[in-house]
Amino acid sequence: MIAQPPDILIEPIVRAALAEDLGRAGDITAAACIPADARMKAEMSARKEGRIAGMACLRLAVRVMDPHARIEILAKDGQDVEPGQVLARVEANARALLAAERTALNLVQRMSGIATLTRSFVRAVEGTNVAIVDTRKTTPGLRLLEKHAVRCGGGVNHRFGLDDAVLIKDNHVAVCGGVGPALERARAEAGWLTPIEIEVDGIEQFLQAQAYEPEVIMLDNFSLDELREAVALNKYVSKLEASGGVTLETVRAIAETGVDAISVGALTHSAPALDIGLDAL
Amino acid sequence: MIAQPPDILIEPIVRAALAEDLGRAGDITAAACIPADARMKAEMSARKEGRIAGMACLRLAVRVMDPHARIEILAKDGQDVEPGQVLARVEANARALLAAERTALNLVQRMSGIATLTRSFVRAVEGTNVAIVDTRKTTPGLRLLEKHAVRCGGGVNHRFGLDDAVLIKDNHVAVCGGVGPALERARAEAGWLTPIEIEVDGIEQFLQAQAYEPEVIMLDNFSLDELREAVALNKYVSKLEASGGVTLETVRAIAETGVDAISVGALTHSAPALDIGLDAL
Amino acid sequence: MIAQPPDILIEPIVRAALAEDLGRAGDITAAACIPADARMKAEMSARKEGRIAGMACLRLAVRVMDPHARIEILAKDGQDVEPGQVLARVEANARALLAAERTALNLVQRMSGIATLTRSFVRAVEGTNVAIVDTRKTTPGLRLLEKHAVRCGGGVNHRFGLDDAVLIKDNHVAVCGGVGPALERARAEAGWLTPIEIEVDGIEQFLQAQAYEPEVIMLDNFSLDELREAVALNKYVSKLEASGGVTLETVRAIAETGVDAISVGALTHSAPALDIGLDAL
Amino acid sequence: MIAQPPDILIEPIVRAALAEDLGRAGDITAAACIPADARMKAEMSARKEGRIAGMACLRLAVRVMDPHARIEILAKDGQDVEPGQVLARVEANARALLAAERTALNLVQRMSGIATLTRSFVRAVEGTNVAIVDTRKTTPGLRLLEKHAVRCGGGVNHRFGLDDAVLIKDNHVAVCGGVGPALERARAEAGWLTPIEIEVDGIEQFLQAQAYEPEVIMLDNFSLDELREAVALNKYVSKLEASGGVTLETVRAIAETGVDAISVGALTHSAPALDIGLDAL
Amino acid sequence: MIAQPPDILIEPIVRAALAEDLGRAGDITAAACIPADARMKAEMSARKEGRIAGMACLRLAVRVMDPHARIEILAKDGQDVEPGQVLARVEANARALLAAERTALNLVQRMSGIATLTRSFVRAVEGTNVAIVDTRKTTPGLRLLEKHAVRCGGGVNHRFGLDDAVLIKDNHVAVCGGVGPALERARAEAGWLTPIEIEVDGIEQFLQAQAYEPEVIMLDNFSLDELREAVALNKYVSKLEASGGVTLETVRAIAETGVDAISVGALTHSAPALDIGLDAL
Amino acid sequence: MIAQPPDILIEPIVRAALAEDLGRAGDITAAACIPADARMKAEMSARKEGRIAGMACLRLAVRVMDPHARIEILAKDGQDVEPGQVLARVEANARALLAAERTALNLVQRMSGIATLTRSFVRAVEGTNVAIVDTRKTTPGLRLLEKHAVRCGGGVNHRFGLDDAVLIKDNHVAVCGGVGPALERARAEAGWLTPIEIEVDGIEQFLQAQAYEPEVIMLDNFSLDELREAVALNKYVSKLEASGGVTLETVRAIAETGVDAISVGALTHSAPALDIGLDAL
Repeated sequence: MIAQPPDILIEPIVRAALAEDLGRAGDITAAACIPADARMKAEMSARKEGRIAGMACLRLAVRVMDPHARIEILAKDGQDVEPGQVLARVEANARALLAAERTALNLVQRMSGIATLTRSFVRAVEGTNVAIVDTRKTTPGLRLLEKHAVRCGGGVNHRFGLDDAVLIKDNHVAVCGGVGPALERARAEAGWLTPIEIEVDGIEQFLQAQAYEPEVIMLDNFSLDELREAVALNKYVSKLEASGGVTLETVRAIAETGVDAISVGALTHSAPALDIGLDAL
Repeated sequence: MIAQPPDILIEPIVRAALAEDLGRAGDITAAACIPADARMKAEMSARKEGRIAGMACLRLAVRVMDPHARIEILAKDGQDVEPGQVLARVEANARALLAAERTALNLVQRMSGIATLTRSFVRAVEGTNVAIVDTRKTTPGLRLLEKHAVRCGGGVNHRFGLDDAVLIKDNHVAVCGGVGPALERARAEAGWLTPIEIEVDGIEQFLQAQAYEPEVIMLDNFSLDELREAVALNKYVSKLEASGGVTLETVRAIAETGVDAISVGALTHSAPALDIGLDAL
Repeated sequence: MIAQPPDILIEPIVRAALAEDLGRAGDITAAACIPADARMKAEMSARKEGRIAGMACLRLAVRVMDPHARIEILAKDGQDVEPGQVLARVEANARALLAAERTALNLVQRMSGIATLTRSFVRAVEGTNVAIVDTRKTTPGLRLLEKHAVRCGGGVNHRFGLDDAVLIKDNHVAVCGGVGPALERARAEAGWLTPIEIEVDGIEQFLQAQAYEPEVIMLDNFSLDELREAVALNKYVSKLEASGGVTLETVRAIAETGVDAISVGALTHSAPALDIGLDAL
Repeated sequence: MIAQPPDILIEPIVRAALAEDLGRAGDITAAACIPADARMKAEMSARKEGRIAGMACLRLAVRVMDPHARIEILAKDGQDVEPGQVLARVEANARALLAAERTALNLVQRMSGIATLTRSFVRAVEGTNVAIVDTRKTTPGLRLLEKHAVRCGGGVNHRFGLDDAVLIKDNHVAVCGGVGPALERARAEAGWLTPIEIEVDGIEQFLQAQAYEPEVIMLDNFSLDELREAVALNKYVSKLEASGGVTLETVRAIAETGVDAISVGALTHSAPALDIGLDAL
Repeated sequence: MIAQPPDILIEPIVRAALAEDLGRAGDITAAACIPADARMKAEMSARKEGRIAGMACLRLAVRVMDPHARIEILAKDGQDVEPGQVLARVEANARALLAAERTALNLVQRMSGIATLTRSFVRAVEGTNVAIVDTRKTTPGLRLLEKHAVRCGGGVNHRFGLDDAVLIKDNHVAVCGGVGPALERARAEAGWLTPIEIEVDGIEQFLQAQAYEPEVIMLDNFSLDELREAVALNKYVSKLEASGGVTLETVRAIAETGVDAISVGALTHSAPALDIGLDAL
Repeated sequence: MIAQPPDILIEPIVRAALAEDLGRAGDITAAACIPADARMKAEMSARKEGRIAGMACLRLAVRVMDPHARIEILAKDGQDVEPGQVLARVEANARALLAAERTALNLVQRMSGIATLTRSFVRAVEGTNVAIVDTRKTTPGLRLLEKHAVRCGGGVNHRFGLDDAVLIKDNHVAVCGGVGPALERARAEAGWLTPIEIEVDGIEQFLQAQAYEPEVIMLDNFSLDELREAVALNKYVSKLEASGGVTLETVRAIAETGVDAISVGALTHSAPALDIGLDAL
């Protein structure tokens, strides 16, 4: 069971999306063609096979437009669905439902697309114990939902922003004058619980880094041989994360090197939407 | 030259994206490792061939974090670029630039991805005079930028929301009791300048619709033969728009039927990000 | 029946108005003089004859302050009322109702004032088939409600802002080097559904403009003779809109020239409030 | 010299007004017809005689759209101007200025309309020492600016909201069981500096009220004779305010009864806009 | 009975506090360890003796997270409580209640701390008829609640901000060229109900000030002898307020000089939180 | 050198505080008594000995009101100052500076109070290597600034909210059926970098917990003997945090038990403001 973020965090995203779509005058087509008190029943269903995420967006979009709507969610976040499978049934004021439709679909399709792509990566490394990890390459404004969608796909979340973990990259190392000084300064400044990760560009930097016992060492653009070497040389507490241009074709081999995690930007920046529709009954 | 939306509309999106990434405590890595007054120079460059869009997001993200930054934009929105081509040079406070980096990249990569995919569709119909048109299947919160990116790719914008045009679909027709009554009610309620479009599901509905002279008739999921028939039968003022599951493989044949426009949801809901990087100098 | 804008668009206006009136400490008079759980019944009624608009503002203002209030709306938006006619009955927590009273009245009086003035213009042109059209000369922050009030008065809405139609004025013509180049550029840049209107300053410009078939030609400050001439010469598809200093005294004669619409800024910028009161029972 | 509210309070109003007008896509006419770097000079001038208020809105609207604009304000808030008199000169980016134009005019016209109407009331009572006072019957969202406009017209501000003074009306008196108990409870709950005003409906209530020494007694809908009687009987510290349906025709006679102030709702709820234009040079 | 500010003013503070605590991902501990539909009962109780204020914050924090929560408030704002006394009982969704807990406690503890400290000052001057008055030295963002807490402690509110009363200090006197000119200018500019207070630095300034009949004269850092002298010399209408570094040790003697009020910044800027806990049942 | 949070995170707090103080009408005293273009010089200085924090709030408050102000910061955040020591010099528009004064002082005094109290705790444990750690018992809305103030005082930040670390408390343990199951569920759900802390109520729970290697074990309300026992028994990787009613009197003895950190709620919930003033020159 994937834990849901609380409505209080999702509703503002849904409200902003509705407001963007309603513009200044609202749904002028429905206002002209649909009586104010007409009711409407509809089903959301999958048009393609995939993994579902973001169903709360359907619920909230409809509820915001019609607080008295009846919404039955049939597919939980994290569930695999078949083409044609009904995901939810809605009965609501017709104008309200038509106004909420596009916003709900835009969000559920996008999140399910991310969950489905993540699932593919997770399946590709099945049996290896490696974690498929996301990045900060998310859609501005939707990070909460997209990170949730990654979890729905079986992935694991990397940090949520610049403030919940230290991640030392090449620029920081250069300014600090080396891996060691950078890690020392980070540890000195870090909060009581703040984890520290450092990105290294080769075995030499890896060896320097591990002596400072960062929580994670990111092996950036390592070859498979280098990854195996790092795994073999890893004698301290650090966990190892492979990263850099990982694809569905390359991820299995990387996983088999023995790293603990593989981070994949494409999970959130290039997942195609899952085809999902809403049909009036 | 593609017209830019004004900064006053883009800056709130960029600020919200920065705030989402900075979280409650800001960039704790830079705070630990980078002196407060360090300066940094960097270049944004394309890693893959493509069409650029959204460069204002780089400028605004950096400027918001460092009002005194020097930013030289070398690639204009709508320009084609080669792998390795430098898109912009920035000199700024190092902490500010590092904090702005991910937000700027997330936005420019996404918009350039949309522009690049749109360009592919536009090129596929070259010489046919057909317009490649977007939809409302955009990322919540980013419609302004994504519609701009479509224009950068050579596409044309469909309506921006539920309020700037009437678009009558099957549900509206059903409630109104037919294509004719729906169009009559829409015209009676429409604003002085409001255009009216109607979606039809076959030749019969098309013939009914055209007598009411809507500005646009959308031929939804028509076969190529049906599209040709509609074009041949179109004797009034309406423009014709083909829609429904259009792909790069099918778009050329659709264009050659003689329709005026083809709308493609994938332009915005499934465009992979264009690979773009920011490298310190 | 006038279509209502959805509550989701009106409620933020009402909430902001309540917040402005409550200030930092709320209604200190009621807090001192009215017990926390006292109930109150009241009637909103017209003090003068007129056309009603904006009743949703009463409902929302009271509901925001007391979610359990009972509100019976007796006069629908767009309805004509007599002096003394009861428009609504409310029973609510007394403090809540007293706090909502001024906000509700300020909005309903203003909107009903606009509806009433618009009705006067519409009546003045009765039988001529001309549309009375509003402008962007609305109160900042209240455009949605004021455009709705115009519809309640029998008027028709012009564009809602700078982005839902092209309106080429003298400055644009001057920069583009003429009516023709301006219209060509506008058509080339316009969205798939975007209507184009151009303002012309005399018959010569009118003739130049009509050949480019803009959706609307605005005849700005034309004499009655010039208006008649333009109507007679109008051989293409454009609709004709008269504008410029139109008053209740002049509107009938303008309408009889045969133009399609007359736009009147005064509908929204100079309508006196309709006298409406709220009386405790 | 009328004191200006600080920009920090006006700018959010102006920004919201610009955003309302720009909508989702901005000024699409200027984007099509005006080069991005074109400059434009314009003059704001009065088309009718009147009193000016709200010039800060012009300055802020233009500045928000173009931070490098040059703006020369020639008519100060509170100044009387003649038809044709130039109020300001602006040189700015052409697209920015065209986008700001309508917002600036809507605000300056409205505020100058209020100032001009207030001036008429003030002139009507010239020599009587009576203050012309506004009410809370202001446009939702614009109270700050409208109360400033009243001062520009020579008027005096009543309370800004429900929280900066106690104002006991008939409903409060009824619930408390009389004028005396209501005033006692108000005084007991009032803050250290909070002034107390009470509305009375006749001489009897007036006599009851004055013994409790409220700062102000509002004589609501008193006849001229009753007003004179109240003035004659007023032996304590309270100031006297006449109110209720005051017009330009009746205000002089009321002033001559010797009351201290006359409050007039029409100042803000029914002032027609002052005709002001912006012309390109 | 202390009058409550309306929920519409408190709820935004509570929502912002919850959002600050929930961050981007919400309560990840509860999400991992507590089933989504688990219920939880809890009691809020005092750990120390004191005066309660801010119970609405508990109610709103829980209600925002779980609209169906059952909340029983047992201790009213302004009530004295003993250690161990139960203040409220709550039954709610467990995740919702755990997420609301810290926000509710932070607010109720802080407000009760202020009420308790205020009560100490009020008790110290018991029998003297002097009012204990707060200042603008409140926590940014919480002024509404903190001023309410002062009232719960038996104190009286000074002005709520820079705009609801004139308070002339030394800088203003210096710029205006003396106490007299400053008071004259203030009276000339003041609104119809605006009270005027002036701070004086000694008997000489006091004598100058009282002739202008400001509503209040603030005797800043006067010795006890000087306070007594001012009280003796006060022949006009002004009320007298002592201020400057007042402590629980000094307040009684000051009160006995005969001043009308004593303002104490420490009430809000230095009150320790009252120890209050929330325990699961 | 204490790292500063970026202005983009502090400025909204300062703007909201200014807006709260300015209310609807702004500083009416300055508007009446101070010419619009008057300049003013002032010094901020310490009235008591202490540790400074939050100087950015002074800079931002003044800059927001007067973008052209000259501000010289003389005391850096984290610096110890003597009574009378000048912390900053400001030259600005007089009205702007007077309007910013209270907001700036409220924030700098509060943050410096927290830094000063934290410093006392840090000094009390000098030489013990223990970290003084804050809690989430911060002022709603000011967590960012208060956590920064703790760092200025030499303290270390605990988590910033519910989402950046897992903290398992008694309620979670009870629901999960023990320390072990709770830690297993937390690890299974935790993000890639998310640290896990668990609160234990005695040695038995401590022993159960340490086998699961949480990053931190919080020893809640342990006696000194129990603390020493836990330190002696701690054979795995967990760091130990003592918590529960820690005071300046008890903190040294706790530190000497050998725990790694001591968390102290009073740092933020009960620190008295540091006395700091702003004097015109």
